[in-house]
Amino acid sequence: LFIFIPKILCKMKLIALLVQSIILFISGACAQDPDSIVISNFFNKALQSDEAYRNLEFLCKNAKGRMIGTPQMTIAIEYTRQVMDQMGLDTVFLQPVMGPGWKPGDVPVASVSSGKLGNQSISVLPLGNSVPTPPGGIQARIVEVKGLDDLERLGKDRIKGNIVFYNRPMDSTLLNTFAAYGGAADQRVRGASMASRYGAVAVIVRSLTTATDHFPHTGMMRYDEGIEKIPALAICTADANLLDEWLQKDPDTRCSFTTNCQVLPQVPCYNVIGEIRGSQFPGEFITIGGHLDAWSNTEGAQDDGAGCVHSLEAIRLFRELGIRPKHSIRVVMFMDEELSQTGGIAYAKAAGENNERHILALESDRGGFAPRGFGFSANGKTLETMVGWKKYFEPYGIHEFARGGGGTDIGPLAKLGAITCGFIPDWQRYFDYHHSANDTFASVNKRELQLGCAAIASFIYLCDKLEY
Amino acid sequence: LFIFIPKILCKMKLIALLVQSIILFISGACAQDPDSIVISNFFNKALQSDEAYRNLEFLCKNAKGRMIGTPQMTIAIEYTRQVMDQMGLDTVFLQPVMGPGWKPGDVPVASVSSGKLGNQSISVLPLGNSVPTPPGGIQARIVEVKGLDDLERLGKDRIKGNIVFYNRPMDSTLLNTFAAYGGAADQRVRGASMASRYGAVAVIVRSLTTATDHFPHTGMMRYDEGIEKIPALAICTADANLLDEWLQKDPDTRCSFTTNCQVLPQVPCYNVIGEIRGSQFPGEFITIGGHLDAWSNTEGAQDDGAGCVHSLEAIRLFRELGIRPKHSIRVVMFMDEELSQTGGIAYAKAAGENNERHILALESDRGGFAPRGFGFSANGKTLETMVGWKKYFEPYGIHEFARGGGGTDIGPLAKLGAITCGFIPDWQRYFDYHHSANDTFASVNKRELQLGCAAIASFIYLCDKLEY
Repeated sequence: LFIFIPKILCKMKLIALLVQSIILFISGACAQDPDSIVISNFFNKALQSDEAYRNLEFLCKNAKGRMIGTPQMTIAIEYTRQVMDQMGLDTVFLQPVMGPGWKPGDVPVASVSSGKLGNQSISVLPLGNSVPTPPGGIQARIVEVKGLDDLERLGKDRIKGNIVFYNRPMDSTLLNTFAAYGGAADQRVRGASMASRYGAVAVIVRSLTTATDHFPHTGMMRYDEGIEKIPALAICTADANLLDEWLQKDPDTRCSFTTNCQVLPQVPCYNVIGEIRGSQFPGEFITIGGHLDAWSNTEGAQDDGAGCVHSLEAIRLFRELGIRPKHSIRVVMFMDEELSQTGGIAYAKAAGENNERHILALESDRGGFAPRGFGFSANGKTLETMVGWKKYFEPYGIHEFARGGGGTDIGPLAKLGAITCGFIPDWQRYFDYHHSANDTFASVNKRELQLGCAAIASFIYLCDKLEY
Repeated sequence: LFIFIPKILCKMKLIALLVQSIILFISGACAQDPDSIVISNFFNKALQSDEAYRNLEFLCKNAKGRMIGTPQMTIAIEYTRQVMDQMGLDTVFLQPVMGPGWKPGDVPVASVSSGKLGNQSISVLPLGNSVPTPPGGIQARIVEVKGLDDLERLGKDRIKGNIVFYNRPMDSTLLNTFAAYGGAADQRVRGASMASRYGAVAVIVRSLTTATDHFPHTGMMRYDEGIEKIPALAICTADANLLDEWLQKDPDTRCSFTTNCQVLPQVPCYNVIGEIRGSQFPGEFITIGGHLDAWSNTEGAQDDGAGCVHSLEAIRLFRELGIRPKHSIRVVMFMDEELSQTGGIAYAKAAGENNERHILALESDRGGFAPRGFGFSANGKTLETMVGWKKYFEPYGIHEFARGGGGTDIGPLAKLGAITCGFIPDWQRYFDYHHSANDTFASVNKRELQLGCAAIASFIYLCDKLEY
């Protein structure tokens, strides 16, 4: 029997992991100050709780495509309100938000055609806020560009009457995919307005993902005032590559599509808010949240069901461990981040009107991946303290603590003096899912989600202990 | 137009990421010693190369279930040999390995039945090396235990003639899932031998995963010499939970199943080996590798197609950057890690017989996830130096550099004096896939795989520069 054991140990990859466990154990044991014990409890409890994962499943499966003004959003609001109620928070309420509606309409039928190469259907979706095509659709030649600057070079002669195809990919060599996203997103947000100035009849924009896939990744676009509004579509990266190839072989390749998306008037909706009253400073608020809305073509798992359930679970962990914060903590499901960011604006507006003192806010809107760190807008001694918190998190593989952080929904709170913080999960996979049908519950790993909840609860616990 | 820009910037999550980019840029710029430039080149090239991902796709889609002795393995050997040939390595050869064969047979039909609760089919698979049931199958009552120690407590009276059901789950609160695996794997490896001593007719073992899923996760088991060999099966965790529930309601619940797995005599096979001859020390070898074999029920993507293509790509990156190593570097596709580890043993045996000096070996056998670090068996000054390499990797989010590391296939090289090293990718998701039908190409993210290749190439580049 026992002669087998060394071999078995070897096979089990145990040698490596035993040593690793010892290192983890020692590093854990050395750091047993009271805060590190609390943090260890947060992680233990989170890793044993299915709550966040089950809440996410509900949002993804029963309220997918929950855009502002949709029945799915009504479900999502009611569900998260009930989750907060059942935690026995001190206050749970709905905060009215008025936001412009927009409906994506039917999945467009679109194709490319070439006298030389034949016909081929392509996968596209309208961009958020886009006007529809005329009922008969649009058919035109395509002018491919790599960015906004190319328009001027080509000029009206080449662009007028044609479809502009923005095909600059995200830079895959950038380690931080959010930087790569930032470097390509101008095409999506401003491409239609710019192309319209040169007489384009529509724009097609390469999906913002480093993956080569068959999912169009949609997202918000805006029209500048005073220009003619032309339809804007996202095309999946696989078909963007195809289109590029066809255009090289036949510059006369044409594209046709019909969209029936709808720009709607303002619709009433809500932020969902729960609050634990602070034991020492009930009038000083720490806000944590994600946004409840999700694009129609998604389950809204990574963007941003994960951020919603992170926030809910962080608060639940406070309750489970019996920790009463010194400051009031609000958990907020923000409305309408995707289209017009009216939820975050409404929240800060109400805070200002009520003379609330908002000391800190944290947003989770980068997916449900394993936690890597936190960014924060703090200065001076507070910044130094927060960077020093790294020591508490390194045993959990969380190393990034640096200045700079926040989020769309909590941005307006910065003007009220709040320190804004962003939760940073691992960033490699996010844009594989972002704004596409690939953003499903199945894409979220339970343990990674649980670790994110624990990291956020731990960070907020430390924030609450500071003096403001 | 321009009044929109601040809002757009906010929406794009750009504020946070701009600051992050600046930090990354600064930390990159500060570390421009020659080695950090080479490492940066490895990452740049890897993130622009589809090679590793395409090689993995081939192995998963054209050679899935590549166990020793199967036609799929013949395909995998020939494919990886050709990949090495096409890189123009100095030597490419097949090294004979004799390993015991084993076939899993058909997917077993299995069910639980209870006079009170009815009948229910369950998902099981035979464990690797297990004997089959008699042709008519096995039907017996079930005795549930939480581990090997419970057997003695229950004794022969309770166990004889019954099926032992090992149901101790992996400890989900352990951060390192490999430690959790190590803490539960004795049931799978030794459970049948132990239960056989008490007269059990078969064992069913809870799958080693922290997920609740419907995939049986198989794996290697062994029989002690001289005991009666009884069939051993893995049951998926969802059905393990069901079985546990039924047994609580009706202790007379029975289980029946038939397996026709086959224990085969020794079969001839090969390690696939490619070599770049060292410019200064051609007789001193650095080995990097993964194992080519994969369980029949899997595509072998995370375990261990990823490790194979990591190793191939690391070598290819050396070629692409025109780096000629000082020491000879071997890339090895090891045979038969899963069943009997004969590939690693054969490799070290040949090395000893040829009086080769093996200075260092690195194994990748923990999946294709984002790189987190390296473990190594080095001592003294070498250990200190290797821990110091952390500074080169931290800009890439890779922070774990510590003593302790190696792997099953390179373990035997330690006896020849080699420093053994293990590549450590993120460990949260591995056991969701490990040894189950869930281990598919689709589970591997291209960027995470690419980053692993770059990390391994960089680590080996630094290892090659040391004096041994």
